[in-house]
Amino acid sequence: MPGNPFEAMLSTPAMQAVFDAPAIAQAMLDFEAALAQAEALEGVIPTAAAQLIAAACRVDSIDLETWVGESRRAGSLAIPLVKQLTRRVAERDEAAARWVHWGSTSQDVIDTAMVLATRRALALLDADLQRLAAALLALAEREGDAPMLARTLMQPASVISLGFKIAGWVAPLLRCRARLQRAAGEALRLQFGGAVGTLATLGDAGPAVARRVAALLGLPTSPDEPHHAWHTQRDSWVAFGCELAVLGGVCAKFARDLSLMAQAEVGEMNEPAAPGKGGSSAMPHKRNPVACLQALAAAVRTPQRAASLLGAMAQEHERGLGNWQAELAEWVGLWTGVHAALAALAEAAEGLQVDRQRMRANIDALQGLVFAEACTARLAAVIGRPRAQALLEQLSARVAAVGPPLQALLLEAIAQDSELAASLSAADIAPLFDPAVAAELAVARATPWLAALAHELPPRTSNPAS
Amino acid sequence: MPGNPFEAMLSTPAMQAVFDAPAIAQAMLDFEAALAQAEALEGVIPTAAAQLIAAACRVDSIDLETWVGESRRAGSLAIPLVKQLTRRVAERDEAAARWVHWGSTSQDVIDTAMVLATRRALALLDADLQRLAAALLALAEREGDAPMLARTLMQPASVISLGFKIAGWVAPLLRCRARLQRAAGEALRLQFGGAVGTLATLGDAGPAVARRVAALLGLPTSPDEPHHAWHTQRDSWVAFGCELAVLGGVCAKFARDLSLMAQAEVGEMNEPAAPGKGGSSAMPHKRNPVACLQALAAAVRTPQRAASLLGAMAQEHERGLGNWQAELAEWVGLWTGVHAALAALAEAAEGLQVDRQRMRANIDALQGLVFAEACTARLAAVIGRPRAQALLEQLSARVAAVGPPLQALLLEAIAQDSELAASLSAADIAPLFDPAVAAELAVARATPWLAALAHELPPRTSNPAS
Amino acid sequence: MPGNPFEAMLSTPAMQAVFDAPAIAQAMLDFEAALAQAEALEGVIPTAAAQLIAAACRVDSIDLETWVGESRRAGSLAIPLVKQLTRRVAERDEAAARWVHWGSTSQDVIDTAMVLATRRALALLDADLQRLAAALLALAEREGDAPMLARTLMQPASVISLGFKIAGWVAPLLRCRARLQRAAGEALRLQFGGAVGTLATLGDAGPAVARRVAALLGLPTSPDEPHHAWHTQRDSWVAFGCELAVLGGVCAKFARDLSLMAQAEVGEMNEPAAPGKGGSSAMPHKRNPVACLQALAAAVRTPQRAASLLGAMAQEHERGLGNWQAELAEWVGLWTGVHAALAALAEAAEGLQVDRQRMRANIDALQGLVFAEACTARLAAVIGRPRAQALLEQLSARVAAVGPPLQALLLEAIAQDSELAASLSAADIAPLFDPAVAAELAVARATPWLAALAHELPPRTSNPAS
Amino acid sequence: MPGNPFEAMLSTPAMQAVFDAPAIAQAMLDFEAALAQAEALEGVIPTAAAQLIAAACRVDSIDLETWVGESRRAGSLAIPLVKQLTRRVAERDEAAARWVHWGSTSQDVIDTAMVLATRRALALLDADLQRLAAALLALAEREGDAPMLARTLMQPASVISLGFKIAGWVAPLLRCRARLQRAAGEALRLQFGGAVGTLATLGDAGPAVARRVAALLGLPTSPDEPHHAWHTQRDSWVAFGCELAVLGGVCAKFARDLSLMAQAEVGEMNEPAAPGKGGSSAMPHKRNPVACLQALAAAVRTPQRAASLLGAMAQEHERGLGNWQAELAEWVGLWTGVHAALAALAEAAEGLQVDRQRMRANIDALQGLVFAEACTARLAAVIGRPRAQALLEQLSARVAAVGPPLQALLLEAIAQDSELAASLSAADIAPLFDPAVAAELAVARATPWLAALAHELPPRTSNPAS
Repeated sequence: MPGNPFEAMLSTPAMQAVFDAPAIAQAMLDFEAALAQAEALEGVIPTAAAQLIAAACRVDSIDLETWVGESRRAGSLAIPLVKQLTRRVAERDEAAARWVHWGSTSQDVIDTAMVLATRRALALLDADLQRLAAALLALAEREGDAPMLARTLMQPASVISLGFKIAGWVAPLLRCRARLQRAAGEALRLQFGGAVGTLATLGDAGPAVARRVAALLGLPTSPDEPHHAWHTQRDSWVAFGCELAVLGGVCAKFARDLSLMAQAEVGEMNEPAAPGKGGSSAMPHKRNPVACLQALAAAVRTPQRAASLLGAMAQEHERGLGNWQAELAEWVGLWTGVHAALAALAEAAEGLQVDRQRMRANIDALQGLVFAEACTARLAAVIGRPRAQALLEQLSARVAAVGPPLQALLLEAIAQDSELAASLSAADIAPLFDPAVAAELAVARATPWLAALAHELPPRTSNPAS
Repeated sequence: MPGNPFEAMLSTPAMQAVFDAPAIAQAMLDFEAALAQAEALEGVIPTAAAQLIAAACRVDSIDLETWVGESRRAGSLAIPLVKQLTRRVAERDEAAARWVHWGSTSQDVIDTAMVLATRRALALLDADLQRLAAALLALAEREGDAPMLARTLMQPASVISLGFKIAGWVAPLLRCRARLQRAAGEALRLQFGGAVGTLATLGDAGPAVARRVAALLGLPTSPDEPHHAWHTQRDSWVAFGCELAVLGGVCAKFARDLSLMAQAEVGEMNEPAAPGKGGSSAMPHKRNPVACLQALAAAVRTPQRAASLLGAMAQEHERGLGNWQAELAEWVGLWTGVHAALAALAEAAEGLQVDRQRMRANIDALQGLVFAEACTARLAAVIGRPRAQALLEQLSARVAAVGPPLQALLLEAIAQDSELAASLSAADIAPLFDPAVAAELAVARATPWLAALAHELPPRTSNPAS
Repeated sequence: MPGNPFEAMLSTPAMQAVFDAPAIAQAMLDFEAALAQAEALEGVIPTAAAQLIAAACRVDSIDLETWVGESRRAGSLAIPLVKQLTRRVAERDEAAARWVHWGSTSQDVIDTAMVLATRRALALLDADLQRLAAALLALAEREGDAPMLARTLMQPASVISLGFKIAGWVAPLLRCRARLQRAAGEALRLQFGGAVGTLATLGDAGPAVARRVAALLGLPTSPDEPHHAWHTQRDSWVAFGCELAVLGGVCAKFARDLSLMAQAEVGEMNEPAAPGKGGSSAMPHKRNPVACLQALAAAVRTPQRAASLLGAMAQEHERGLGNWQAELAEWVGLWTGVHAALAALAEAAEGLQVDRQRMRANIDALQGLVFAEACTARLAAVIGRPRAQALLEQLSARVAAVGPPLQALLLEAIAQDSELAASLSAADIAPLFDPAVAAELAVARATPWLAALAHELPPRTSNPAS
Repeated sequence: MPGNPFEAMLSTPAMQAVFDAPAIAQAMLDFEAALAQAEALEGVIPTAAAQLIAAACRVDSIDLETWVGESRRAGSLAIPLVKQLTRRVAERDEAAARWVHWGSTSQDVIDTAMVLATRRALALLDADLQRLAAALLALAEREGDAPMLARTLMQPASVISLGFKIAGWVAPLLRCRARLQRAAGEALRLQFGGAVGTLATLGDAGPAVARRVAALLGLPTSPDEPHHAWHTQRDSWVAFGCELAVLGGVCAKFARDLSLMAQAEVGEMNEPAAPGKGGSSAMPHKRNPVACLQALAAAVRTPQRAASLLGAMAQEHERGLGNWQAELAEWVGLWTGVHAALAALAEAAEGLQVDRQRMRANIDALQGLVFAEACTARLAAVIGRPRAQALLEQLSARVAAVGPPLQALLLEAIAQDSELAASLSAADIAPLFDPAVAAELAVARATPWLAALAHELPPRTSNPAS
């Protein structure tokens, strides 16, 4: 049953599955299994008990409804799960059941389960991030030389190339990717401290058990530095979440640009059409940009998710009251939201429809005004910068007010000025008004940039995750 | 299946059910049924078709998984549901199926469904709000005269009564209740505008159909003022959501106070103990304040939910791209979060354990310093304000530094001053240090206040909602 | 000196002045003067002392730098100001100085000063709100019948009228106005409770003094209901702040629409040009929408301001530690930001440039597709709905794919269908493709709506505030 | 004049000065000077002109009031400043004035000025971060072996040492420090792209000029990778801001703990007393934790600041409309807020008053319950885990209900059980109830941890910044 449909519509099923009840319960059981095995290896608990415990750590033996229902009452997801697990083990061996969860605390199992789930979430996300970047770079390869308007403060500014624009979309994606991997390396660590962080029950064996648990779960251990829990020191974790929120912002920027370019009046780029996507039964001409919808919806919510993580950091003493629990719930929302944005944009990017003619037409509609700067520079060589600038300003004002193209007015002005007429012909002037010429510099800037970006992206093979 | 367990733990099942997939689908179908019936009554569509449509508007005929799955792709919850409904009707009568959703648009059905669900959510919430207020007022009735420390900037300030403190918790609850009802009256209105808000398909019949749909759904209609859709004018809706967020803040304030009073070192008030609630298997002395946990977790998240609603308001033109969809999802989270807080606090409030002795002991531990102001006033009548004030300041400093109780030092000082000694005996001084006397003014202020609050609260009968 | 220039650029000088150091200091002194006078009237302090105190309550006797500097250290704006005031009074009369701030607490003076400043802020804001609404209604009067595209999900949907769009901008403004006034009535109240809310120092005289202070400051008093401080019960205050944030969202929605319509490729509406406004030295064709800039900048920040107010509500016990102080600072930012948005939009609205031709051209560019629905309805009368719908869907797909206008294709189809040809001539079809006809219904819907809105707006006289 | 006093009270003068109008104007002029010099070095503009321009780039030649006033109207801080600068240069040489700001755009100068200011802000912040960490480590050195209660969910849990707690405060500070330095390295980069990011005016000289400007301003250049502007690619910048917000969260966690420990009823740690700090004229016993006030006030606001930065990321096309401007203003608020928190805590940390006796008394007040776990382990060696656990659970329940200390009950139970009595004497039991023994493990865990942290902190010499 799909739960809250408003949330489901803005999520991917794949990411929802990473954090759903069975997945989290299994991840918690994975921790309990590793804990028992590690303790047995260090001689803290009997090996036979550890084997029984590990064997019982399977989610299909858990009554998930009861678990979640009781956790609400207990104020903890761990206690009711450990209770069920203990009962499962006790059915086989009462004595072994005594060693379930030994030396650990609720937060150890919950946070570590979240770490394990997040590791999967990151793999899922990264596959779509690469897919999006690759699709955009392929588009730049095909259409990157197309001249198009640059726009500042939502007004036309001058001419760039599509490849230059695409580089500006891709570069932040790859920077985010690098930062996310780095932050993950710092944040995806075993949580293990026992009741108050000292692993008191385990005494001297504590650090060794911790290292073994981490190793069994494939989490990093650092033999050189002392092991610590991070029960109420959430900085690395929240910093990781913030990096994800930054990626959400990068998706939003691309989606904002794309949605603006997809307006009928602009018409430069469109999401691909597909059955059941963004249509309207009543209006056959409509093709709604549903990938932008996903990314812009996430853009409304993601910054607030990050704010909740940050706002939850003042966790009291050795375990927080409410703030820790809120952080966990927001964590899930952050991942589902950003992944929905990224996955939708990746799919759209693979079929983006570029309309070079509209790009060109949008430039032409501005009557040459976007070339005024280039004209000034050219004339300055003949009559000096001050006179050139004054002339172009005056001509531009006439274009804006009255409407004839700048090029015509300029030719007229040249004809009327003997000094200019002696040096400049219509053939000298024409290239100044050629969008392709105007885009040349952007192409030149973009070419090595795109090459560097392509080099950064790992070669794509298959992508089983998405 | 319980979905995301971190979210479920911080929600009530009752509120989750208000917004889950079957409930929202049925609410959408209720709109479609009312629409068809209203249009038949106004002669817009055939009566027989309306009857067939209304009969088909039952959630058990909907494949919910397919619905939600397709809605993700479509970027709309309405299109795939209308498709299923149309198919159901067409199975009976192809011609009738043409009239499904006639004259309406996706946003009409989705927003109106949300309005209908929210009406139920408010009833649920209100029952628990009343329950919480009633429980606190009953506590004030029983224990309201208990003297206790007032604290400012988390430091002891002087003496009040428990009833005075409780009045300060209840008054905002009842103000929120009044504001929520008022805001609901403005926000819980039919959404109905057709494709772009003009009800174009219905022509002149539009307003009459709108009034009938509203009436059939029990939503307010105002014959005097023109009917309007509110597709991208979300102010009344978001203002309603903000009122809910304010209630979340009121819950948080009570929970913050309660959690501070429940600290072992303070020990003035505790949540009731119950099996499976807030316990710890390892530490039998632990009783975690799990209602505070719920309310404080909501306090981390609720302000951000409100910010998302506000941030989603810049909805483009006649229907928003992403922001509207984000708002709907945040709306649900806002209600589930605040209800979880309120329901948990209501349950806790009905069993709050007050320790009058600890309240008294916490006053006593301050060595009389909290009575210095009252002493100054008493002595001023004898030796004038300046001398009285100087004396008490000096004595207080000695108490803070060295430790003997202020009362002893004051008696000593009186004995050494003939003027004071002539006028004041130990018996005159003793009441100045009596917490009960000190609390008298607070009791006097609280009594009419509590009476007024009790008067505002409707008499409680049964409460089937919670 | 203008302080932080990034903040100043996004503020109005008028609103900054409402909350700057001299204004707040004077408002605090106004409270102190009223307090002394009220206490003298109730016989609590000597009349002569009250007169001296009131006479000293002038901001020009305060060293503002010292005040703010010491307040940082003290953690309170009140203590260092009261110290300076006391010294001023003591220079005249040592004994009178003893009565400065008598019976009051820091939060009383600070919160009441904030209430007084906010009352001025609201007047300022309201003047610009009315100005904006009036300018938009005047525009609707002049140009309201212009047909224009309605757009959903940032794609063209169908045809409305400019007046219909303007009504959708104005209605929320006036609803916000009504809600703000109502919320102000609840929130702009005297703060007065003494150290812990009981007015302990004043004993039985407390309530009477409170009523007098309120009356002297022009704040509401309610003789029927008990007086209470609201030191840590911030619900009415924060609810008021949230209403302001909702107004910020309403401004953002208008600005978003305007900025989209002002794009060169859309060109339907522009902010007025003026020297020094939104220009670019390099690009004479540029006219940046700087009022939109202000409103959209505020839209980024305002929701977060509201979240901070809400997040600050869990104020501990009888005075908060940090959260109260944070709330005050955010309060100021909320008002300056929303006023900057509103004032800029009001100024822009008075000179908005509407391009009816571009509105028309944008409709025409869609090749008649936005009229497909109307055509279906017309043909259905001849050949029945199913055939009509199928035909139009097929024709629309051809328009979208190949490009000839829908009208031409439709005439062709009619000519080829004897049944249609017998009933429908080109003259019957033409009005279906006439934007003015298409806009008629929107005009009809808008006319009474705009009239009702105009009726709600008070007649504007002069506006000294803005 | 101190501007808005509510904001000033929550800021440090030093950080306010980093971002005030003269500092920002000078930083913008520094960019203009470097630009002119770099362009002269690359032969783009005449050397004489560059010299005149650079000489004019002094803030004392700027009318700051006019600048800020005009910038509000222009929607840009750059245009009015460049105008003033141009006029200054033109007074010396009209021709040279033509080269002011050559090839650059508003965003280049504003963003680079922000980078330069932020570099200073980081130095200021880092000095106080180090100061705070050093003070805490010094405290751990002195008092780290003191046993104290660990608390989870705001309830006593078991015994740790003060040094263990301090290590948990310091470790995140130093991690934040490392992350901030790293993020600064990525974010504090020259902004330089000309009108639309291509440095079009400079043609082939663009990249070389960019490298020279960066070098002149002491900003990093990377000859290996292509130069790019980051006008609307804000990811590295916002990620840096988020790291600062995380540091704010770390400060809040410490402040939350400290404020809880400073409660009169807990009394384990207090901020230092000092004249004018946190006092109350009326209540001599009050010492308000004003450093906590600063940090907790920042904690309310900082997450929202980060959310605003993240929410501003969807900057349109080649320059954002409103979102960029909002981001700049929020940036300043983020730095002033976090620095106020950090500076206040650093000052407090240098004088923290620890009360070991209260720490001990708070343990003792729990009647031995926090030692139940240790007793279980000890008895298990004699009578097996199941019996030991059952016994302790039963005894603990009696302590909680009736009140005699656990130690007495346990001795009684041992005496009544011949098996236990044979193995365990009162002398064996006593250490189980000794807080110092209980804290031993925490001390052992903390010792290498604190050593590692101390090693990470650079040796402090003088600290001119704070």
